[in-house]
Amino acid sequence: MGMVWERLLPKLQEWADINSALRLLSWDQHVMMPPGASPGRGRVSGTLQAIEHSRLTDHSLEELLTEAEQDDSLDEGQRAAVRLTRRAFDKATKLPESLVRELAELETTTFQAWAEARPANDFSLLEPHLTRMVKLKKEAADAIGWEDERYDALLDDYEPGMKTHEVESLFEGLVPSLQPLAESILAAAGERPAFLSRTYEVDKQEAFCRWLVETLGFDLSRGRFDVSPHPFTIHIAASDVRQTTRYEPQFLMMSIRASIHETGHALYEQGIPDEMWGLPTGDIWSLALHESQSRIWEIQVGTGRPFLEFMLPHLKDRFPEELGRLTPDDFYRGVNYPRRSLIRVQSDELTYNLHIALRFELELALFRDELAVGDLPDAFDAAMEKYVGLRPDNQTDGVLQDMHWSVGAFGYFPTYTLGTLYAAALYDKAVEELGDLGAEFRRGDTSRLLVWLRQNIHVHGSRRLGKEIAESVIGGPLSPQPFLAHLKSKYGELFDLKL
Amino acid sequence: MGMVWERLLPKLQEWADINSALRLLSWDQHVMMPPGASPGRGRVSGTLQAIEHSRLTDHSLEELLTEAEQDDSLDEGQRAAVRLTRRAFDKATKLPESLVRELAELETTTFQAWAEARPANDFSLLEPHLTRMVKLKKEAADAIGWEDERYDALLDDYEPGMKTHEVESLFEGLVPSLQPLAESILAAAGERPAFLSRTYEVDKQEAFCRWLVETLGFDLSRGRFDVSPHPFTIHIAASDVRQTTRYEPQFLMMSIRASIHETGHALYEQGIPDEMWGLPTGDIWSLALHESQSRIWEIQVGTGRPFLEFMLPHLKDRFPEELGRLTPDDFYRGVNYPRRSLIRVQSDELTYNLHIALRFELELALFRDELAVGDLPDAFDAAMEKYVGLRPDNQTDGVLQDMHWSVGAFGYFPTYTLGTLYAAALYDKAVEELGDLGAEFRRGDTSRLLVWLRQNIHVHGSRRLGKEIAESVIGGPLSPQPFLAHLKSKYGELFDLKL
Repeated sequence: MGMVWERLLPKLQEWADINSALRLLSWDQHVMMPPGASPGRGRVSGTLQAIEHSRLTDHSLEELLTEAEQDDSLDEGQRAAVRLTRRAFDKATKLPESLVRELAELETTTFQAWAEARPANDFSLLEPHLTRMVKLKKEAADAIGWEDERYDALLDDYEPGMKTHEVESLFEGLVPSLQPLAESILAAAGERPAFLSRTYEVDKQEAFCRWLVETLGFDLSRGRFDVSPHPFTIHIAASDVRQTTRYEPQFLMMSIRASIHETGHALYEQGIPDEMWGLPTGDIWSLALHESQSRIWEIQVGTGRPFLEFMLPHLKDRFPEELGRLTPDDFYRGVNYPRRSLIRVQSDELTYNLHIALRFELELALFRDELAVGDLPDAFDAAMEKYVGLRPDNQTDGVLQDMHWSVGAFGYFPTYTLGTLYAAALYDKAVEELGDLGAEFRRGDTSRLLVWLRQNIHVHGSRRLGKEIAESVIGGPLSPQPFLAHLKSKYGELFDLKL
Repeated sequence: MGMVWERLLPKLQEWADINSALRLLSWDQHVMMPPGASPGRGRVSGTLQAIEHSRLTDHSLEELLTEAEQDDSLDEGQRAAVRLTRRAFDKATKLPESLVRELAELETTTFQAWAEARPANDFSLLEPHLTRMVKLKKEAADAIGWEDERYDALLDDYEPGMKTHEVESLFEGLVPSLQPLAESILAAAGERPAFLSRTYEVDKQEAFCRWLVETLGFDLSRGRFDVSPHPFTIHIAASDVRQTTRYEPQFLMMSIRASIHETGHALYEQGIPDEMWGLPTGDIWSLALHESQSRIWEIQVGTGRPFLEFMLPHLKDRFPEELGRLTPDDFYRGVNYPRRSLIRVQSDELTYNLHIALRFELELALFRDELAVGDLPDAFDAAMEKYVGLRPDNQTDGVLQDMHWSVGAFGYFPTYTLGTLYAAALYDKAVEELGDLGAEFRRGDTSRLLVWLRQNIHVHGSRRLGKEIAESVIGGPLSPQPFLAHLKSKYGELFDLKL
């Protein structure tokens, strides 16, 4: 029979290969596929997901898992791979293959409906699909099972091991301090710097962002950098990490921030050791930890004064007319100019997590059967007013602004805030261990931080839970305090406020 | 149990879906994939090909096929789908799954070796991989079986129903007339028009070719038009036909011809009725018929005087400095300026099929065990001299110039010549039925020809053999005569020769 690991490994590799094909289908759908191909693509993805599901739930795999769980000769990484496979096996065997296929096809048609409904400002185009989506996601959550409440089963897909009550309690610790803090800063921010509203040629933005992501360490010989309506990063296979961004002539800083944000995700994926590829431990299962990596680069590096001082002359080279006279002070203040926006992805770091709080509240209501999909547009507008202080006057900028729900990704939003909180705590720790990084960032050299993240976070892959990896680096449980302290220190200095 | 067709259909659709994923992997590999991802991609494609193979060879499929073959209620299209599936089943069951997987992985690594060997001018980088490829292709041919000779089994993969001796006899009818014809025309051609050697900005070439392929009827809402080192067309799924071309500043006419050529392939694929997608009858199994469609648009339309008169002013708009003074006469003569080239894809329509003849001769020798892979570079140079009258002085422009062998596509080359011969015969027939097309081509209107091709060729999909479809339109067996007559008439007029 041979060692159990040698019999298990080809099955894990086949699973990874099918996932590679599925990820390529998904990347292609969002970045390359011609619009007319959309109706047919759902069936192709559905077929491959059904094949993945049937391989994962095969009885012979369970036998090997059971045998492997009793084998003392496995090393730590192998045991973690077995644990993650068992977790996926358990989830998959609880879902009927017909539900898996139906959800896969529904994801494509609902995403397409969203893509039509958003520009048409017409939630009714999306509503029937989304109603069915919520119904099937409830069925899926109940089939998988949960202890405290149904939402736990959804959250666990994106943040393994995390419970709804933990997330609720973090938001309860964050929101009451964040709302007044954001209000005082927004009130003191003064006039919006003019350079933020100028028009910047998209081709030049693209050339700048391509240079920037390479400068930060993204390896284009092992990845791609493209355009899609909603920026994302996907690890298709070994040495194949693809990130996207988007460009609008009026929003130069949005493109740059999105590019740095996705580069943070992409550096994490490119930092997974090659020998882990194809094993479940080589995938990042914790989206919160993933988000912490994107936020560190976007916020702690990309909006901090030292790196902005490095960036500005390079940006002036591309846009001499638009930015020629901008001072480092004004650039720093402009990049961090607080912007209360209806649009989550255009909002600043002060209000961003209030956007998440409102979405988390609505998701909880949907899955606690306290809200119907048909009432979502009004509930969204009311929650936006409560948390962010603005009321959408159309659905495009309201309930239709995000794609997440259209692809069934309920339980995903809270990982954005968890990531923000981890980022602040991890960066404090990096500075504690490495000393001040300002001088090297001012030269555009971010390599010591990258090496630190690789050694402390990336190298582990998913051998432990995201929470365990982060807490062992931070040296304690997650709290909103480092993030709140970061905001007080940065904005206090920027606008001369006592916070 | 229900009707057998209703039980068979989901299996055929699943087969089509797996093929869609495989085609996307292939398109991506040649157009989008970062270079570092190459080693891992082979395993992903290999895994999916193994899954396709195991689905195709499943016992339950054979039972359904046997039942369907005895069902009188099936219509003609359904019977053809059953026939093609049986053909694929028979081929697949004769190949061991291990050989299928090994060949799939070898295709990726050999292609990669070729991509390194070609610019390095070093066949030795490719030789070990190619030696193994030829060995495995022989094993595959023998496993599938053949009557007259081993090469029949390879040829049948690209041109179902065609025999080696038929192809040999067509080349024997073609080459002795074509060689002296080409020599007289080449001798009379005079000086090479200067505009062919100018430099044309690649971005403008791209914009022109994109406009041109749309003008010819390619629907970009149901397809893509990209760049790859070797232009190709692939039908990924319903309403998802992707073609590529390539641009070099010094070769404007090559890019335009490649774009029109691939558009011919792409129009054929976009002409398959939607309701046939997902059935084996909705795939084009005859590469010769496929090539006939690309050649009709490239040669009969794209190098004929009327369409060139339409094209020239549009080309002058893009390149006023380079082409402003060019007359329609000089443009026509320049586009058709005969070019004896070492490079197949840069050669003209006179010598192109001599390039194919030499490759066919070498493939026959390899698979008749009369030639070893190690002797291929010398044999290639000798055959080039014999057929084309030139001797390569390096391997890049010699044995390494084509990718086909590196992906195991032995038996493919002769379909280029078969397609050329079909194109000439089909176009004669179109003009016989539609009357002269010159006046409408001069206005850029090629729609009547496209409709005729759709009604006479495209609409059939693969409900019959390519040979049967073509011969029923032509009204007799394939012969080299229409092609030779076309050359004599066109070049006789162009250079005032009696041919």
